[in-house]
Amino acid sequence: MGSRTVQSTELPALEKACATFARARHRFERLEATRQQLAELLKHNAFQLQQLQEVTSPTATVYRCGPLLQLCHGPLLRHTGLIGALRVLTSSAALLGGAGGLSLQRVAAVAFPSTQDLEQWQRAQDEAAQRDHRRIGKDQELFFFHKFSPGSCFFLPRGAHVYNTLVEFIRSEYRARGFSEVVTPNLFSPRLWELSGHWQHYSPHIFSVPATPETLSLKPMNCPAHCLMFAHRPRSWRELPLRLADFGVLHRNEPPGTLTGLTRVRRFQQDDAHIFCTLEQLESEIDSSLDFIRTVYAVLGFSFRLALATRPEGFLGDPETWDRAEQQLEQSLQNFGQPWELSPGDGAFYGPKIDIRIRDALGRHHQCGTIQLDFQMPERFQLEYASPSGSPARPVLIHRAVLGSVERMVAVLAESYGGRWPLWLSPLQAMVIPQTPEVEDYAREVQAVLRRGGLLADLDGDPGTTLARKIRRAQLTHYNFQLVVGRREREHGTVSVRTRENRQLGELELPRLLQRLQELRDGRVPDAEQRF
Amino acid sequence: MGSRTVQSTELPALEKACATFARARHRFERLEATRQQLAELLKHNAFQLQQLQEVTSPTATVYRCGPLLQLCHGPLLRHTGLIGALRVLTSSAALLGGAGGLSLQRVAAVAFPSTQDLEQWQRAQDEAAQRDHRRIGKDQELFFFHKFSPGSCFFLPRGAHVYNTLVEFIRSEYRARGFSEVVTPNLFSPRLWELSGHWQHYSPHIFSVPATPETLSLKPMNCPAHCLMFAHRPRSWRELPLRLADFGVLHRNEPPGTLTGLTRVRRFQQDDAHIFCTLEQLESEIDSSLDFIRTVYAVLGFSFRLALATRPEGFLGDPETWDRAEQQLEQSLQNFGQPWELSPGDGAFYGPKIDIRIRDALGRHHQCGTIQLDFQMPERFQLEYASPSGSPARPVLIHRAVLGSVERMVAVLAESYGGRWPLWLSPLQAMVIPQTPEVEDYAREVQAVLRRGGLLADLDGDPGTTLARKIRRAQLTHYNFQLVVGRREREHGTVSVRTRENRQLGELELPRLLQRLQELRDGRVPDAEQRF
Repeated sequence: MGSRTVQSTELPALEKACATFARARHRFERLEATRQQLAELLKHNAFQLQQLQEVTSPTATVYRCGPLLQLCHGPLLRHTGLIGALRVLTSSAALLGGAGGLSLQRVAAVAFPSTQDLEQWQRAQDEAAQRDHRRIGKDQELFFFHKFSPGSCFFLPRGAHVYNTLVEFIRSEYRARGFSEVVTPNLFSPRLWELSGHWQHYSPHIFSVPATPETLSLKPMNCPAHCLMFAHRPRSWRELPLRLADFGVLHRNEPPGTLTGLTRVRRFQQDDAHIFCTLEQLESEIDSSLDFIRTVYAVLGFSFRLALATRPEGFLGDPETWDRAEQQLEQSLQNFGQPWELSPGDGAFYGPKIDIRIRDALGRHHQCGTIQLDFQMPERFQLEYASPSGSPARPVLIHRAVLGSVERMVAVLAESYGGRWPLWLSPLQAMVIPQTPEVEDYAREVQAVLRRGGLLADLDGDPGTTLARKIRRAQLTHYNFQLVVGRREREHGTVSVRTRENRQLGELELPRLLQRLQELRDGRVPDAEQRF
Repeated sequence: MGSRTVQSTELPALEKACATFARARHRFERLEATRQQLAELLKHNAFQLQQLQEVTSPTATVYRCGPLLQLCHGPLLRHTGLIGALRVLTSSAALLGGAGGLSLQRVAAVAFPSTQDLEQWQRAQDEAAQRDHRRIGKDQELFFFHKFSPGSCFFLPRGAHVYNTLVEFIRSEYRARGFSEVVTPNLFSPRLWELSGHWQHYSPHIFSVPATPETLSLKPMNCPAHCLMFAHRPRSWRELPLRLADFGVLHRNEPPGTLTGLTRVRRFQQDDAHIFCTLEQLESEIDSSLDFIRTVYAVLGFSFRLALATRPEGFLGDPETWDRAEQQLEQSLQNFGQPWELSPGDGAFYGPKIDIRIRDALGRHHQCGTIQLDFQMPERFQLEYASPSGSPARPVLIHRAVLGSVERMVAVLAESYGGRWPLWLSPLQAMVIPQTPEVEDYAREVQAVLRRGGLLADLDGDPGTTLARKIRRAQLTHYNFQLVVGRREREHGTVSVRTRENRQLGELELPRLLQRLQELRDGRVPDAEQRF
């Protein structure tokens, strides 16, 4: 096409041409030939000839479809008649073979067996765009990013509420489950990462900080600091299992081009914990870790799949320890009573692990939590405890996380809920709406009472909007409850309660409302609006 | 003395010689003379001659005392007879005028009018050593430092409990007082610090982090990030006062030699908040800030002094704004009803402030909290809100902190309490002590019930120690309560309660004990052991 480019206005015409071509039921015909034969076949097409130069095997395949001939590995459809519906999406200019290469126009389209399939796909696309956490983050004023700190999120008050509520949830589980929270430094000598073994493989992702007397590193993970804690004084078997938890700020140096929203960041916190235990305690610790995960994911509304990843080629450590550990993990998975898969050879070189993949409300899978055994780090840090006989023994280390990166979990939840947060996590718990400016003082009182009770209550006192529109606006913004107050409510000390699904729950006395909302929040129920 | 050095074994003899000399009531005689005259007077003393070379004024003073003659500014005592008691403390070698200078021996002593004064001083010294937060931190396993992270503290589970409990205390006040917590990045472009004005004065203390596409800085304070938050979308007067609170991790590059315990660190968190408000709202915001400080310090057991620091020479901004702001601060101090002082000219160049000095249980003063006005930062970030008339107006910024650095506050509190933490803050709330190994299971049950109730309960099951010694040991470690259980308690489902002052509070049913401890903890009372 020379210097001519495809215009976006031309895409509908292209789509029509493609559809006509598809209806002609052209066959896709495969031919395997030598490079010499192919050079002859493709001699009128400079683009194809250039691609042929990159073929290194003695023969290659071309596909013919109507008048078109194209180098292609295949496999392709039998004929174009199987395309029931298609949509041309984008066009762009490209240089074949990079800068200085031949200029060509690239048009991308997507095809389906039927119109229904296309429509379903389009709805999913629209839904995903609607549910993109970056969009929700902006619409609900949860967070933003700024050029002055690429890859690090600014959590506004509402986003910080979600963030801190997740952390507080895990903390409450820590208290019940015998985990001890610690606070550790962010800057460490590279000697620590050499000792832990991270330096060799991980140093390109570690931010360096020039300092006196030596350059320091911003920590990308907490485990080595926890090993220093274990090692800082002699330990006894009586102290095991020792479960150290840390919400420390982690940094990883990701290239600026790869940073996207909250899913790929440079700065994040994890619900990170390390369990130091004996080999005998492994099974019960894994049982507890799986139970921990089940509890949290049930509250968040995730189902999940489990897989046991066993020793890979070139694993470190002795096979007997691996055998025993893998058996214990397997036993824990059996105890857990949920189907699980085997991923042979998928473990890390330093220990086997349980892979956990959650399924969100959109049916998408995410890897968030992890249960990972580590035989190597205790070796490298020469961790020891005095066994009951007094002789020194080496603990096993379990890395585990349930939320994983809190940043990423905020994104997964925002998209999974589509911004319709459950009450306990919601930054939009209640919108107080005065029927008239006359009762705005009472509305403020209602708001103040709820806020003192620890609930996030906003007030829509906008005098230029009708009551019906204010209610609708609050519902569209996904406020869990709309609390309407008028003269009647002021007189009675009540509020009229609605849910974001526009269910009217009637008039309630203010103290009773507060108590009920607190109960629903503290119970972390997923459907406070139904249960109210 | 040439190469001979003073040995520590010789100090008693020196002390005796000093005491004999003092008893002789030698007068201290002052003489002012020209440098030429002094050179003649001191010609037999190479050390004094060298010091004379550093004198730049035409005349200088020497003091004579018995056979001694010494360059000295004075003033000194009238005669040595006023020295009622003295103690020689240390000796050390030094080089006069630095490396390559004359070698001399330096003996340090301290003198008092009476033996009683000396003894009192000695007791205070012993007390201070006993209460040094580094010692308490080690004894109680609160925290430690490690060569791999100079100036950054490792808070062990107990220290992290104190740390997080302080943070949670401030958070609960934030909820009641209309502050909104946010979470902000740790790495920022130096362009941010240029914009805020910190770069010019503060860059030597900011850690740099090489990154793509530009070097980043580890934040030493939160205010510029909060200004970006204010500026990230248009603001209305209806949103003011906007109170943003942040417990973000801060780093300041202090030279390794200056780092001491928790009082001089490189890594810390603050209970930092920034209030954006109108000039009209200033007085009520300052009133609230003072009330916030009074509430928190009362719970922590501090009294405090206030001073108003007004405009210095070379202040920035217009005098009318300063006048008005200083008047409002003064009015707030009057409203507060506690005596305050004026520190004329002690304000920062960007705004007046209220200096707050707390007095701890040892009578020592610390500057922890601050209330600081800032007219400059809103200018630099061009912060604006739409006023009721719709025209843009500039907010005033108040920097405020109550605890200040949480790290430093942990040190101040550890020393102020001497490790005897009040129950609500204590990492040593209860020690469960089984009378015999036979009832250890019941003791574990008691411990588990308390832990599930959110209390920090340890268990001393050591079979080789008598009951009396275990109780004494727990009291010396400052466990608020010792909970003794025997067969009788197991049978009745009770525990026998003692306090660390060894008050016996009798036998209590376990649920009642838990409830009472929770009440005392949640009430943050300073003397739970008395009130139980």
